[in-house]
Amino acid sequence: MEPNYFTTVDRMEEISARLLKTAEMLGIDTWEDRKKAQTPSCRFGDGGICCRICSMGPCRITPKSPKGICGATADAIAGRNYLRMVAGGAATHSDHGREICRVLYNADPNGSYKITDVAKLERIAKEWGIETEDRDIYDVAREVAYTGLMEYGKPFGELKFLERANEERKKVWKEQDVMPGAVDKEVVKAMHMTHMGNTADAEALVRQGLRTGMSDGWGGSMMGTEFSDVLFGTPMPKDTEAFFGVLEKDMVNIIVHGHDPAMSEMVVQASEDRDLLELARKTGAKGINVCGLCCTANEVAMRHGVKMVGNFLQQEKALLTGVIEMMVVDVQCIFPALGPLSECFHTKFITTSPIARIPGSRFVPFNTAEAREQGRALVREAIENFANRDESKIYIPEEKQKANVGYSCEAIRHCLDGVTNSHLDERDTYKPLIDCVKAGVIRGAVAMVGCNNPKVRPDYSHIEIMKRLLKNDIIIVVTGCAAQAAAKYGLMDKRAKDFCGAGLKRVCELVDIPPVLHMGSCVDISRMMLLATGIAKDWGIDVPQVPVVGCAPEWMSEKAVSIANYVVTTGIDTYLGIEPQVSGSKQMMELITNGTREMVGGGFIINMDPDQLCTAIIDGIEAKRAALGI
Amino acid sequence: MEPNYFTTVDRMEEISARLLKTAEMLGIDTWEDRKKAQTPSCRFGDGGICCRICSMGPCRITPKSPKGICGATADAIAGRNYLRMVAGGAATHSDHGREICRVLYNADPNGSYKITDVAKLERIAKEWGIETEDRDIYDVAREVAYTGLMEYGKPFGELKFLERANEERKKVWKEQDVMPGAVDKEVVKAMHMTHMGNTADAEALVRQGLRTGMSDGWGGSMMGTEFSDVLFGTPMPKDTEAFFGVLEKDMVNIIVHGHDPAMSEMVVQASEDRDLLELARKTGAKGINVCGLCCTANEVAMRHGVKMVGNFLQQEKALLTGVIEMMVVDVQCIFPALGPLSECFHTKFITTSPIARIPGSRFVPFNTAEAREQGRALVREAIENFANRDESKIYIPEEKQKANVGYSCEAIRHCLDGVTNSHLDERDTYKPLIDCVKAGVIRGAVAMVGCNNPKVRPDYSHIEIMKRLLKNDIIIVVTGCAAQAAAKYGLMDKRAKDFCGAGLKRVCELVDIPPVLHMGSCVDISRMMLLATGIAKDWGIDVPQVPVVGCAPEWMSEKAVSIANYVVTTGIDTYLGIEPQVSGSKQMMELITNGTREMVGGGFIINMDPDQLCTAIIDGIEAKRAALGI
Repeated sequence: MEPNYFTTVDRMEEISARLLKTAEMLGIDTWEDRKKAQTPSCRFGDGGICCRICSMGPCRITPKSPKGICGATADAIAGRNYLRMVAGGAATHSDHGREICRVLYNADPNGSYKITDVAKLERIAKEWGIETEDRDIYDVAREVAYTGLMEYGKPFGELKFLERANEERKKVWKEQDVMPGAVDKEVVKAMHMTHMGNTADAEALVRQGLRTGMSDGWGGSMMGTEFSDVLFGTPMPKDTEAFFGVLEKDMVNIIVHGHDPAMSEMVVQASEDRDLLELARKTGAKGINVCGLCCTANEVAMRHGVKMVGNFLQQEKALLTGVIEMMVVDVQCIFPALGPLSECFHTKFITTSPIARIPGSRFVPFNTAEAREQGRALVREAIENFANRDESKIYIPEEKQKANVGYSCEAIRHCLDGVTNSHLDERDTYKPLIDCVKAGVIRGAVAMVGCNNPKVRPDYSHIEIMKRLLKNDIIIVVTGCAAQAAAKYGLMDKRAKDFCGAGLKRVCELVDIPPVLHMGSCVDISRMMLLATGIAKDWGIDVPQVPVVGCAPEWMSEKAVSIANYVVTTGIDTYLGIEPQVSGSKQMMELITNGTREMVGGGFIINMDPDQLCTAIIDGIEAKRAALGI
Repeated sequence: MEPNYFTTVDRMEEISARLLKTAEMLGIDTWEDRKKAQTPSCRFGDGGICCRICSMGPCRITPKSPKGICGATADAIAGRNYLRMVAGGAATHSDHGREICRVLYNADPNGSYKITDVAKLERIAKEWGIETEDRDIYDVAREVAYTGLMEYGKPFGELKFLERANEERKKVWKEQDVMPGAVDKEVVKAMHMTHMGNTADAEALVRQGLRTGMSDGWGGSMMGTEFSDVLFGTPMPKDTEAFFGVLEKDMVNIIVHGHDPAMSEMVVQASEDRDLLELARKTGAKGINVCGLCCTANEVAMRHGVKMVGNFLQQEKALLTGVIEMMVVDVQCIFPALGPLSECFHTKFITTSPIARIPGSRFVPFNTAEAREQGRALVREAIENFANRDESKIYIPEEKQKANVGYSCEAIRHCLDGVTNSHLDERDTYKPLIDCVKAGVIRGAVAMVGCNNPKVRPDYSHIEIMKRLLKNDIIIVVTGCAAQAAAKYGLMDKRAKDFCGAGLKRVCELVDIPPVLHMGSCVDISRMMLLATGIAKDWGIDVPQVPVVGCAPEWMSEKAVSIANYVVTTGIDTYLGIEPQVSGSKQMMELITNGTREMVGGGFIINMDPDQLCTAIIDGIEAKRAALGI
């Protein structure tokens, strides 16, 4: 029996339907309409066998035209398209990481951005051989940041963070030639290999996909995560709330949306400034309510307990509540649809990054020097916009759920310390967790990640899989839109332990955690790589042996393809609920499902049916247990 | 009247038809078959309004579905696809340049690669502030190369070669925010901007296209050209021959195909080794005949007078002659079709770069340390393969043309020195040429560049446009497949002056040049940028004022799109005979044809009809003359 406090997917859909009535009234389209209009989708694109890489074409593979004009087969075409998706994703995540490096480079004790986690910065400095003794921490920060920026473009050598891997992994990576050099160089190499007249060998394309993905997960993304922690604090458990009910009728509602915490931190800080709170009250509002959407929500929730409106496919619906004074966005996953939609409301739609220029928005280019003041100016503008709501367009759903978030690796180890015997046991390790897994109290762990995708019922796959895993004593770590699905449903409420199998329930009680641990945004999947690596090291086995797998049941973006590549290269099987666009090539399907497992120990298992996918996950975990003899 | 020694396009096509009979006999497909099977092509792809950037789609723009699922309009989708083409092209050219930087970095007086043009290396070192006094030239080379490699990844600052531009250009670039930083960073930024949920504003996408293109033309490509000159010699005029008749029935025929001169130089050197020539004779061959195809042909013809078999769409036909003992390729524009086709013959198909892995080839990864010996081993293998020809499959067309090639900027200025008064005039300038243009003896110049594309009759557009320009006293500089079209036809034979207008004819006689000047491979379009810049500087006007335009009547690859972007940003109008895949967006069409001209002084003029395109070119040049009052 499900606890009655969960917000079911049926209920979520009822709420969506109510909000869509406003859209209908306004005569504005939403993704539901556009998805319908775009159905059926092109089967060539779906299968990855449409090539637009040169202008001799476009070419499409059919029984009558089995090759492109250049002679490229379905395998070459699907392989190239696939590698370009990895390149797009790795570029995107990594460029986010670069922006964080730049912010760290410009950190200033008297400026907008300060160092928060000094100890973490010093740890990384030591790891990279950068002197810390008797140095101003901002000097250290600048040198670490510069070294980080060079990780994108250094002419020689492999990425520094690869050294964090366990020895067996590094050996495999070297043998399989998937150790990435400078991040940007790998992306460019992927683009070069896929250019007309270059690599047509699917295996070589897949291998570069692994390498390019690694430059993201163990390069750009990992720097994004680590330096965000240095700047804004390493997440530790805290309470927040999630779903539309976090919006406040009587407050100035500002939504921060996108990915990079640099902008959202400034808005959150400004919303706590006394003078602005005072201004809000003067305007008749009871306060300033900054809420997060998409991965920005994860960033600010993890560090400040900022409330989460929802995930990717809710971005239009958040505006449709009619109570959003301002939607401030930075980069990635921002619907261009927000432009025309915001114009139907009083909502100010503000873009802040040159990476994401969107028609119908006002562009306020954030810069490190003025960011604090820019954040204040935006909050002020939102306050002044409070009076402009149109009552006839307002509907705020009441539903919201409590969520306990903030489970960085450091936080997880800290929680595990709580169940060690401080006199006898080694502290700051994953050993208590490993002992639980060995004993079978917990069967294993699943990293649930990824987006929403209208190809499947939104959030449904996330939730159905998570619920069944929990019942089977499999603990879940989450990031991205998967995290918010769990939060909205109520699975990050510590009470959700009662819904789990007896073993997992007991662990949640002892360690005082929810059964679904929120590890952050999509770049923070790098945390999951370090978690798996840490477990493998503490266990004394290689990562592919650990009963841990990844699952992206509703993935949508190229970033997800890049992630999937570094996850499998890290040695973690990845279960996908959306088929990568390579099905038109048998060789590519074989390579991504089995080929990579032979190379690096991890591969994809693909099934659009969440129930079957979950069965495969449980079987996969049990098989890993059996192989370990536990 | 045309001179009777020209090889007409009709005649070229007769020869092709004869070679295709062999393909038919063997039951193997060629691009002609595959083009037919791929016709009609997808109108969504053609118009740039199919989006496969995330896996919610693919989405296509139609009257019934005017937006993608995310809300992206035709403008956003076409703009993103277009910028990705620029990114693919810039990545590709620039990665070629990076490889040359690496070779230079590893240059060794006792190794495979040596410094040939010491003076040029010293000039570049001085330009970059690198000490040359009392230093070993190989130390200088290493520092210059390292600095060059850092141009791909340096965290801060703009590209060094941008300083070569005239002041007016630099001012425009700064004002328009199109000065590129590190090459790889611009490509990654382009990939990031076009990722799902980022830039949907077409103008911002076009501007990043200009910036990314500039990172190619004034970055990666320019380094590729300059350092190739340093390593292998700056081209100076020399004689060669072109077209299938350069293949020798009684000799070991080796075709070098691709782009990067590092591999082909080694094969050419090995083919001149006495012991290998002796071995060839022992095997019954009269010698070793290395010929070039595609841009590799341009590289080795310009520096060594190596003969040119032909251009892009002839690569299969070269094999169909049945006398190719070995086809050695490196990167770019290599048909995957060569794999199965070579298997129909005794031909050894050798790939040498990890960038271009092709099924049906043998992979011999070239490396700087062993390259000289690797080149020798390949030539030896080709010699041993001479005996394996199948007489029943042999047909060598007799046609070939003389061509005078090797017109680097240095060579052009040197030729112009020949008509100056050495006592009175400044030497090593473009002033004599400028005087001719001012006087109207030459009306202007056209840079004819780009590929072949089966969308139009191969070579026909190149040739028809060139012939009419020559008759109109417009001098032509060429690179890439356009160069080979001219060479095959006979337009690089100095005799072709007789076919020109009286003014141009007189100039060709005085300066002793052909009317079509071969400036090199596609990366060497950077030479054309320096030529236009040099002319503008010597004239004292800005580049867009100079009666010089670019024309790519049969372009095909993403590289061409990148080139077109840096050419217009340099201020040179570019006439295209193939429509960029953005026609589904009015805004994008407007931006690339007129928008960029307002930004940076150059834009595209598009016309699929070569005659109309040529009229537009002549009108464009005359309009520039009129504006100058000449």
